[in-house]
Amino acid sequence: MDKVRIGIIGFGNMGSGHFSNIKAGLCPEIVVTAVADINPDRLEAARTGSEGKVALFDDALKMLDSGLIDAAIISVPHYFHPVYAQECFKRGIHVMVEKPAGVYTKQVKEMNAASENSNVVFGMMFNQRTNCVYRKMRELVQSGKYGEIRRTNWLITNWFRPQAYYDSGAWRATWSGEGGGVLMNQCPHQLDLWQWICGMPVRVNAHMKFGKWHDIEVEDDVTAYVEYENGATGVFITTTGDGFGSNRFEVQMDGAKLVVENDVLRVWEFKTPVPQFMKECKTAFGHIEAEEITVETDGKNPQHSGVLNAFAGAILRGEPLVANGTEGIRGLTLANAMHLSQWTNATVELPFDEDLYYNELMKRVAVSRRKENVHVLFSDTKGTYGGSNGK
Amino acid sequence: MDKVRIGIIGFGNMGSGHFSNIKAGLCPEIVVTAVADINPDRLEAARTGSEGKVALFDDALKMLDSGLIDAAIISVPHYFHPVYAQECFKRGIHVMVEKPAGVYTKQVKEMNAASENSNVVFGMMFNQRTNCVYRKMRELVQSGKYGEIRRTNWLITNWFRPQAYYDSGAWRATWSGEGGGVLMNQCPHQLDLWQWICGMPVRVNAHMKFGKWHDIEVEDDVTAYVEYENGATGVFITTTGDGFGSNRFEVQMDGAKLVVENDVLRVWEFKTPVPQFMKECKTAFGHIEAEEITVETDGKNPQHSGVLNAFAGAILRGEPLVANGTEGIRGLTLANAMHLSQWTNATVELPFDEDLYYNELMKRVAVSRRKENVHVLFSDTKGTYGGSNGK
Repeated sequence: MDKVRIGIIGFGNMGSGHFSNIKAGLCPEIVVTAVADINPDRLEAARTGSEGKVALFDDALKMLDSGLIDAAIISVPHYFHPVYAQECFKRGIHVMVEKPAGVYTKQVKEMNAASENSNVVFGMMFNQRTNCVYRKMRELVQSGKYGEIRRTNWLITNWFRPQAYYDSGAWRATWSGEGGGVLMNQCPHQLDLWQWICGMPVRVNAHMKFGKWHDIEVEDDVTAYVEYENGATGVFITTTGDGFGSNRFEVQMDGAKLVVENDVLRVWEFKTPVPQFMKECKTAFGHIEAEEITVETDGKNPQHSGVLNAFAGAILRGEPLVANGTEGIRGLTLANAMHLSQWTNATVELPFDEDLYYNELMKRVAVSRRKENVHVLFSDTKGTYGGSNGK
Repeated sequence: MDKVRIGIIGFGNMGSGHFSNIKAGLCPEIVVTAVADINPDRLEAARTGSEGKVALFDDALKMLDSGLIDAAIISVPHYFHPVYAQECFKRGIHVMVEKPAGVYTKQVKEMNAASENSNVVFGMMFNQRTNCVYRKMRELVQSGKYGEIRRTNWLITNWFRPQAYYDSGAWRATWSGEGGGVLMNQCPHQLDLWQWICGMPVRVNAHMKFGKWHDIEVEDDVTAYVEYENGATGVFITTTGDGFGSNRFEVQMDGAKLVVENDVLRVWEFKTPVPQFMKECKTAFGHIEAEEITVETDGKNPQHSGVLNAFAGAILRGEPLVANGTEGIRGLTLANAMHLSQWTNATVELPFDEDLYYNELMKRVAVSRRKENVHVLFSDTKGTYGGSNGK
């Protein structure tokens, strides 16, 4: 095999975006051979876009059984990510799953367990992990040279969406369709990066508002507080309702302060680590000398095509993935814990009660409204993601 | 009267600092005629510093009764602020109180009520209100031109203090001596500015750690979440434990985003206010055009001497104060509510139960440790406050 034959399950904004990238030559080791979608208009778009060169299926399972594909990209509504992933595992088809890994961790645990019993390559579309500034930040934080983390703080409020966005699909921003709002649709990237760079917290306390800024039933405004095992604390704030939001991620460590804002990583190194200075300083108003250092990155930020190229490399030559599929559960755990904290008005310890979460979610799914008068929009999402500006 | 004769009650770091400013000619309408302190070493420092020109008292009440002063600066431990303020009111002596107004709002309410029945000028030392960037920010936020506030966010973690600071006075960082930690000593300025610029919230939920980074019994790490009457939310994060912290204050409004960081105010105006754009935008990924504008301030930031000069102007000519004494209760209300939220592990609605707060505080005062082996340090606090860098 010198090229991976890929089938795309779900030809919406993301599925068609991946198709366009591959068609544009950004993934030389991948060829799209098939597309599956239940929506005839979307299949027609795939036919036109491929000039008739890809096989079209109105049923994803038929595509998986067709023999035409070695691997699948799963870009359907969130609840179906683990479902189709497991159908692929059964058939020995490699899988790239769009974020989030699923809607609830119970479901994702089953997916992960099934992946362990398969021999396929299983990746998550965490394209923000390809951003050089976050890769560098992770390298520095995890290196140990700056000691322990004391505080994390991510203000990621530049996910503005107008009402028209939510009106563009019947599944959007519903408990039954997406299983959540900004945490499930926009923020899986940042939730993943947060834990990828700083590790998982041990408890979560969140305040969120449902349909605060939009006519939707799920959350569009979240403030979450977390505590880590070493006693460090963190905050994660997000919304789709701020007109011109911010994306500022700060990590305070014993020996340095790191900040990513506007796609730039800035690092201040301390002459003396805090725990040592705290004890040794003999003057009441003594302060730590901090010097900003020049941080060089490799400058690369290949995003979705970078994730797909690594996926192809993993299939063809056993090279590492950008993100293993089984890691998708971590950011999802954070999102689920935030919802559970809001629903129970309590701090949630990790691991949380997954049955409780599932039952609370299903209560909301049961009364989830189907949206009427939905105007389906085909959207060009170029420029709506990619940089650390969150878009 | 062409000069206000001032007596300083408490000649510690702050009292001696005010003396130095006045002596240096920064307050041409003020003359220090007396100093009171229970500590002979401090009185000796006042004698030396004034070249024997000020009257010295080991009892503040004797100074208040001496006929030597028209006004007093109260710069003693927090619990005594309302006590001495009321002694001044009784005698018709004008009062400038150091922050915080007191330790608990019950006490401060009594002080405020007493001030209403007096004819004296009563000011609070909220010197950060003299900073041109915060004055300008307040003017813009309160002007109405940008509509309503949607989110406030203050990361004020550059109040680093080494252990030596806390070891420099027996009253420092004890429930009995200060009635709190970073919220009561370092942050009264920011808590005041926060409410001065954005208004008071209606509920508070806080997480704080006591003696997390230092050997102290009070809080040195706080993350607080608030909600405002209009549904806006806010976060306030502070510590004395970060080595090289941040001071970044962001306000998101319907029509603009305002950020103060590193003593610079930046403002982005939106072409269309969010509520209008939210409805009118017809594309799913439409975004609001925001343009950064040039913000001009008057460049003035006279700090403590500015507060004292306005105080003299109020006494001599009825001019406005920088901060009325009765306004000190607002920031204190926020601090008290944060403590109460942590102690009760619950969200606190404002106005809160002041008896409950007082009882909870007194439980802690009852077991408050007196510090042994305290090495009293005389500290030059120049450069430890003044700018929006929080120091």
